[in-house]
Amino acid sequence: MREMAFTPVQPATESQPLQSQLGCDMKLRHVVESQQFTVPLLMDLFNRARGMERVVARGGTLDYQNKIMATLFYQPSTRTRFSFEAAMHRLGGRVLSTEHARAFSSEIEAEQVEDSIRIIGSYSDVIVIRHHEEGGAKRAAQVSPVPVINAGDGNGGQHPTQALLDLYTIYRERPLDGLSVAIIGELDRGRTARSLAYLLAKFERVKIFFVSPPEMQMKPDILEYLDEHGIRYEVESEIERVIGEVDVVYQTRIRPERVADIKGLKRYAIDSAVLRHMKPDAMILHPLPRTVELDKTVDDDPRAFYFRQAVNGLYVRMALLTMLLENQ
Amino acid sequence: MREMAFTPVQPATESQPLQSQLGCDMKLRHVVESQQFTVPLLMDLFNRARGMERVVARGGTLDYQNKIMATLFYQPSTRTRFSFEAAMHRLGGRVLSTEHARAFSSEIEAEQVEDSIRIIGSYSDVIVIRHHEEGGAKRAAQVSPVPVINAGDGNGGQHPTQALLDLYTIYRERPLDGLSVAIIGELDRGRTARSLAYLLAKFERVKIFFVSPPEMQMKPDILEYLDEHGIRYEVESEIERVIGEVDVVYQTRIRPERVADIKGLKRYAIDSAVLRHMKPDAMILHPLPRTVELDKTVDDDPRAFYFRQAVNGLYVRMALLTMLLENQ
Amino acid sequence: MREMAFTPVQPATESQPLQSQLGCDMKLRHVVESQQFTVPLLMDLFNRARGMERVVARGGTLDYQNKIMATLFYQPSTRTRFSFEAAMHRLGGRVLSTEHARAFSSEIEAEQVEDSIRIIGSYSDVIVIRHHEEGGAKRAAQVSPVPVINAGDGNGGQHPTQALLDLYTIYRERPLDGLSVAIIGELDRGRTARSLAYLLAKFERVKIFFVSPPEMQMKPDILEYLDEHGIRYEVESEIERVIGEVDVVYQTRIRPERVADIKGLKRYAIDSAVLRHMKPDAMILHPLPRTVELDKTVDDDPRAFYFRQAVNGLYVRMALLTMLLENQ
Repeated sequence: MREMAFTPVQPATESQPLQSQLGCDMKLRHVVESQQFTVPLLMDLFNRARGMERVVARGGTLDYQNKIMATLFYQPSTRTRFSFEAAMHRLGGRVLSTEHARAFSSEIEAEQVEDSIRIIGSYSDVIVIRHHEEGGAKRAAQVSPVPVINAGDGNGGQHPTQALLDLYTIYRERPLDGLSVAIIGELDRGRTARSLAYLLAKFERVKIFFVSPPEMQMKPDILEYLDEHGIRYEVESEIERVIGEVDVVYQTRIRPERVADIKGLKRYAIDSAVLRHMKPDAMILHPLPRTVELDKTVDDDPRAFYFRQAVNGLYVRMALLTMLLENQ
Repeated sequence: MREMAFTPVQPATESQPLQSQLGCDMKLRHVVESQQFTVPLLMDLFNRARGMERVVARGGTLDYQNKIMATLFYQPSTRTRFSFEAAMHRLGGRVLSTEHARAFSSEIEAEQVEDSIRIIGSYSDVIVIRHHEEGGAKRAAQVSPVPVINAGDGNGGQHPTQALLDLYTIYRERPLDGLSVAIIGELDRGRTARSLAYLLAKFERVKIFFVSPPEMQMKPDILEYLDEHGIRYEVESEIERVIGEVDVVYQTRIRPERVADIKGLKRYAIDSAVLRHMKPDAMILHPLPRTVELDKTVDDDPRAFYFRQAVNGLYVRMALLTMLLENQ
Repeated sequence: MREMAFTPVQPATESQPLQSQLGCDMKLRHVVESQQFTVPLLMDLFNRARGMERVVARGGTLDYQNKIMATLFYQPSTRTRFSFEAAMHRLGGRVLSTEHARAFSSEIEAEQVEDSIRIIGSYSDVIVIRHHEEGGAKRAAQVSPVPVINAGDGNGGQHPTQALLDLYTIYRERPLDGLSVAIIGELDRGRTARSLAYLLAKFERVKIFFVSPPEMQMKPDILEYLDEHGIRYEVESEIERVIGEVDVVYQTRIRPERVADIKGLKRYAIDSAVLRHMKPDAMILHPLPRTVELDKTVDDDPRAFYFRQAVNGLYVRMALLTMLLENQ
């Protein structure tokens, strides 16, 4: 049990290396970026998530009924927030919730995220933060007296729990080593695509195809990371050239307002025509919400796994919360 | 107990008739419109609501402590949301809450309510939806893996749980057969008035007077429904002509900005002068909030039942939640 | 246990003196302004708060699991709201929450706070209200069927629970009689400064220095109250003249946009230079959030108590909730 009364708050200081602040290896303290997760840590998480499937089927547990999770969303995201909050409730826990902290609180301004976190950390046992600036979650973790989970930061930041549930969804169906994955969409701003690429790089003989309009290609930092880790990848702008050979199609949103040639967008969409070219046992994933890049006619195809991803998100977030709350 | 893990979601499809999708008769699945409720179903609900009065007096129950209700309000309504959430809490349950989904989530747009419902349905055991478009709740029910309750849809749509608590408030005081009711206000846009008219039509020898400014009369669809069901009604624009003979005055809001002749509005208001012409045992109901059409001097009159309606809303919504959660 | 069913709501009426409506002496009914608290009542509260430190250290209690607190915030304040909600959760209770009632509900308008409170009071066991108008909380208390707590009203109103936690933070460290306190900042609009001044006036041999830019001096009503109660005070505009002799520095926010001479603001700020002139055992308090008036270099000084205030706020609000809920 956490001793709050009279024990002075001992936040990590900026002088410590981030790695030790985040508490890597098997002792997870904060979840800021997907690179933190080693393969053994991932396997521990996934085993717990399997257990959570059984817990939910039994109606949940009350084991965490005196734990409080605070969701501090500077940007609104009803789905992600509900997923975390449902996870905490299925564990029996309690929730402090904010839909849109930035719009509401003149008090809570960007320069003061550190003060907010210190205070909210004295009211809660774990904080889930979505911040509009890249690095917002890391700043929070650096001062927080309780574990922090990054639920998305900035346009070019990360969304590590999304990548964890994406990977878990694949893991439930097939071996991760040797996997061939097409990651499609607006990749330059793709938080979920970036976080997933980092995770896939942990496994053997993985091959990644990055498919996007030329002006939205994956940024060099990710490609360099893959080079360093010896991961094969190709940068493509033609979906047809890869769709027939991949095991997983990871489709992401393309916002039409960012594309000059709207008709050209269709070349990056998954629809019944594209389905015909895919392997019969391929998996189609999408973090949702979707716009035009994923046709509703795909929903009934057995290769469509995107609603299953949402359910898996519940299990993975429950598993992650138990890891963080145990380690306090 | 609901088996979530590994059982594929089986939403109702559009090809099924709505009646069977909603699960009528004694097996209620969704609550979309008040016509769904047969008299036996209403009596089952009202008996449960009576029981809930005793449950609340004892401080509530913990029977539903592993059930989660999601309130998905595309339009804000603090009172209706709090009423549902208090009902779930008094049952021991848990709540995922959104105050204003439409303003917050660029993600959640009108064309995607189906995706949102499928996802939120995998986090929760029942969904309460208020949607800004007529038919929004029906669209939700058609794809939802869990029961959906309509908490108001569109301007010309319905608000069936309001009508249920209105009818319960009358039922607690007098027989429903033979009732004479004046429904007053902005009836062309009156969700609650529409829903109540459908419910009253289930009973014997009911007579309804629709009283409104001429440009805000009840729409023909309701009048035709009453004709088909042999219910007597009159369309009036003079409150004086009916106020002395009715058992129930159902007053609703008139937004002053919709009326050219503001002074004329007074002719539709209930105040101490009107009280003198009412039957001594009449009941005054109002779904609240009010503007000028219901004077505060009426509050202390024993015929004023509008604050009792709010309390009854808690019991009726508790009863409804138990019916829906049992049927899963 | 509260008997809800069938017992007519008995709101206090405007004709009763406020003192008896608020339920002073040892029987606290509403918390509207800090003057309500007598010294015996304060000591009862602080003893309970000490007990709550132990309750939280043990992980909280489930004693209040069938009690519902409604937080009705017409103005957003994530920190204050989270503090109350965490307090209720640590007691095992349940929460109905609104982040920004005024922006969301066209229904809930200023003139109708009385109707809203009557209705929300039938859904909950205690209401925490932040209102944008001075006197909003008092209006709520006058009609509420359940206890009301003022969480801040208007610009010139009060924020009594903040003052209670401020005083508790001092009480935990030293005797309150004989205390010398500098209250610094934008005092003409300082809800927390006003509420604290009222509380300090309850104790013996207290001396208060009000330090502010000349155009932001404490208003005459507070100074007259102190005169009537024989409390010594001085109105200063130079921080240097008092900083060396006070036991407590109560710093509050100065919004730069209100000051013509921005550079002059520095004269009211606490930084490492000011620290050198303070007593070695002085305490620095600040209700937070801060802007430029409290430098981050102060955070590591042992005299900095402002993060401890936040933790103490949890204990004091838990204590207050138990007093109010017991008295129902």
